[in-house]
Amino acid sequence: MTEFDFIRRYLKQQNDADVVLGIGDDAAIVRPRSGFDLCFSSDMLLKNVHFFADVSPEDLAWKVLAVNISDMAAMGAVPRWALLSAGLPELEADWLQRFCDSLFALAQRFGVTLIGGDTTRGDLVFNVTIAGELPQGQGLQRHAAQAGDDIWVSGRIGLAAAALQCRLKKCELPPAVFAVCEQALLRPFPRVALGQAVLPFARAALDISDGLAQDLGHILQASGVGATVWLDALPTLPELKTLLPEAQWQACVLAGGDDYELVFTAPAEQRRAILEAAQRSNTPVSRIGIITETGRLKITRSADDDSEIQLTNTGFDHFDSI
Amino acid sequence: MTEFDFIRRYLKQQNDADVVLGIGDDAAIVRPRSGFDLCFSSDMLLKNVHFFADVSPEDLAWKVLAVNISDMAAMGAVPRWALLSAGLPELEADWLQRFCDSLFALAQRFGVTLIGGDTTRGDLVFNVTIAGELPQGQGLQRHAAQAGDDIWVSGRIGLAAAALQCRLKKCELPPAVFAVCEQALLRPFPRVALGQAVLPFARAALDISDGLAQDLGHILQASGVGATVWLDALPTLPELKTLLPEAQWQACVLAGGDDYELVFTAPAEQRRAILEAAQRSNTPVSRIGIITETGRLKITRSADDDSEIQLTNTGFDHFDSI
Repeated sequence: MTEFDFIRRYLKQQNDADVVLGIGDDAAIVRPRSGFDLCFSSDMLLKNVHFFADVSPEDLAWKVLAVNISDMAAMGAVPRWALLSAGLPELEADWLQRFCDSLFALAQRFGVTLIGGDTTRGDLVFNVTIAGELPQGQGLQRHAAQAGDDIWVSGRIGLAAAALQCRLKKCELPPAVFAVCEQALLRPFPRVALGQAVLPFARAALDISDGLAQDLGHILQASGVGATVWLDALPTLPELKTLLPEAQWQACVLAGGDDYELVFTAPAEQRRAILEAAQRSNTPVSRIGIITETGRLKITRSADDDSEIQLTNTGFDHFDSI
Repeated sequence: MTEFDFIRRYLKQQNDADVVLGIGDDAAIVRPRSGFDLCFSSDMLLKNVHFFADVSPEDLAWKVLAVNISDMAAMGAVPRWALLSAGLPELEADWLQRFCDSLFALAQRFGVTLIGGDTTRGDLVFNVTIAGELPQGQGLQRHAAQAGDDIWVSGRIGLAAAALQCRLKKCELPPAVFAVCEQALLRPFPRVALGQAVLPFARAALDISDGLAQDLGHILQASGVGATVWLDALPTLPELKTLLPEAQWQACVLAGGDDYELVFTAPAEQRRAILEAAQRSNTPVSRIGIITETGRLKITRSADDDSEIQLTNTGFDHFDSI
């Protein structure tokens, strides 16, 4: 099978009224809708850095696209178009079929049209660029947090990190607990509905890819503010708290990353609006702290217990921690 | 240096009035101008597939971005925004500085703003996604060729392939000739000005990345037409014709690729308009054949000598020929 057969057989599957010219030319052509800005994001995923070599093609395709859709969620944008570049060791028909079936199922689910990309011979490396729509002038930006804002997080965090620790033999979990955590690691669910629902009420937002402490740290730095986060308010899998040593659990929820939940801030007077938006989008949210004027991140046990908990491992950076 | 320091230090350098939010958030935000469609293209480049391991950072950065800008040229589009993903073995400050200086010099030259991307640890792999503007409803598409069209090619072809053959010890060239060919291989010059200049007059276009025969073949297949190409009309470095064995020279100009010149078709009555557009854009063009109704590509010696020349090697495909 040639590169062009591959493109023809697997990638020309979708219809999109705003796509003037889809996959197969030097470039795709789309017609932006008036009244909308466009968001762009790219993520590269490499074997043994972002996924294990034994990952199934279904899980791999999901993750490659989902982490990009998640970036649109974190802006409050509607994901629209994606370009996939893939370096593959060989074109094996069954593997490709499974990869593409999973990719298009996810794309379909989120209304994303694949409009282009590139295939080449390589050792499992992927890059997705995604474009999404935002009502003109809107968008959840990291520099928009203000002192007094509530800090919210969606879903549950620390699960993906716990699964990773387990895979790396740094902890042991009962099979049922590991299965739940592994699902979070392999199949992060982009919070697109939540991002759009809170767009009118929230200020700053990010998706948690490198760990809550580090990602929230970016909001704080960009906004010139600080924060207090309550450890006991962090939503996680309850079993992890009892099964893991305290320090390891803290590392998972605060420095773990890879869960792709949203962390966002909103004025305290929007608390009800946020909860209603969460309900409308069928997404659990937890209020985990407040933005302060301190310029630094402080972790305490709870809103009522102000004594600080010291962190050592503050997050994942590709060039620091591998 | 962390990933974030890297982004801060090197990549936040440009201003662009249509960029609402640049590098540094989950996604960039741009404001499309009304009356324009947007073109999107992605190219992935890997070590030992698309470039040699000993390439200089300046040449590498040039090529990574230039091949993407070239895709915009082939659509007749104006390149505007790019996202760069890079997998790097280590962040060495001098290497990065040289890479980024070259990247931004090229971007600046073509009015491209870097709006995002990703960095990760990897063994020299790059992906650029580029977006460009086209007047609504326009664009040089590969399915638009019609029987009777002239076939044109810009610049000179076969040089990059000859340099590659030399590097692979499959031929020998005098140093001065090799230097000219290597420049074509390392620093392809995107024909953006030409693409825009011929946009009103041309029908189908492509940039030659996989070899003239294969890339023109895409136009023929997509347009449901054939072509006759005149070997003696192909613009190349004259020395190559005398220095290389005939079969190797033919392979270089017809199946070589990597020159990133444009091949395009236009109605014969636009011949003067094409030549004027070429002059306006300071780009040499050559008329190399005609589109036919045969449904196949026929190579002859010249317009006057109709006897067919048989090809064996028709181009570069990553999964066929490596």
